Amino acid sequence: MNSPLLHELCEPFLGLLGTWKGTGEGHYPSIKSFEYLEEATFAHVGKPFISYGQKTRDLVTNVPLHSESGYIRPQGEYLAELVLAQPSGIIEIHTGSIEFTENACVIYFESIDVRLTPSAKEVTQVSRLIKIEGDTLSYDVSMAAVGEPFQHHLKAVLKRQT
Amino acid sequence: MNSPLLHELCEPFLGLLGTWKGTGEGHYPSIKSFEYLEEATFAHVGKPFISYGQKTRDLVTNVPLHSESGYIRPQGEYLAELVLAQPSGIIEIHTGSIEFTENACVIYFESIDVRLTPSAKEVTQVSRLIKIEGDTLSYDVSMAAVGEPFQHHLKAVLKRQT
Repeated sequence: MNSPLLHELCEPFLGLLGTWKGTGEGHYPSIKSFEYLEEATFAHVGKPFISYGQKTRDLVTNVPLHSESGYIRPQGEYLAELVLAQPSGIIEIHTGSIEFTENACVIYFESIDVRLTPSAKEVTQVSRLIKIEGDTLSYDVSMAAVGEPFQHHLKAVLKRQT
Repeated sequence: MNSPLLHELCEPFLGLLGTWKGTGEGHYPSIKSFEYLEEATFAHVGKPFISYGQKTRDLVTNVPLHSESGYIRPQGEYLAELVLAQPSGIIEIHTGSIEFTENACVIYFESIDVRLTPSAKEVTQVSRLIKIEGDTLSYDVSMAAVGEPFQHHLKAVLKRQT
């Protein structure tokens, strides 16, 4: 089947589409710092949303660590919504925006709702900053969790896979 | 890489694992009834969760319709949690249980929280019943949405793909 035409609402997010691989590092007061391998995919089916999924593995042992999946919902006027589910029992709802500079595209999401299953660890606030420069995607995730104040948690640099 | 060992908490859900294809039908007072093709996948990486994703297409036109993705979190004692994100801007958090009869396995989830992005249509309650009999997976989804009382919405029958 031919690839569907990108929905016009998704056009500002064209640079996200594809599969990305690279490495990242995480830190938080409640845990030991760690480094990871990541593969992330952003895809579309011609409808006004972009599906997102990622998986990480321990950089040293290759053991699976985190994964998450969800959808970006462009709203026009360079605005968007994001819904995200995590196997840790956390779901996030964000609103955000996309900006373009001469060489980069920056997408910034801030959570408007973070919800938990009964057995999940407490997370109350999350922000996600994604920057795309050519074939490099870098991101930062900050969060308030387990009673700690809002702070930086994850940073990664991924390369577009051809 | 070899397939990882199934986490013991996931063992009751072994019958779910795999890729399933089939057809379904949907109805609700606020929309025209519809029929769809579906592909659903349940997978694991050796950790205490099962990832879930599905996509549907119109049975006649083959146009993409719905998709959703999330994770089942077994809790032991035949109990589980479910987190789910949808491109329609809806997220669902469920608790549920799994039961075994002589020939079937039945998983029943009821939402404990349904949350929406600012632009999503209102959904307030969802239940998901999954039944596995050999290589057949059937499911029913009921929901309360857009002011309508809680009622049946989707029914599908999928076959395990080898």
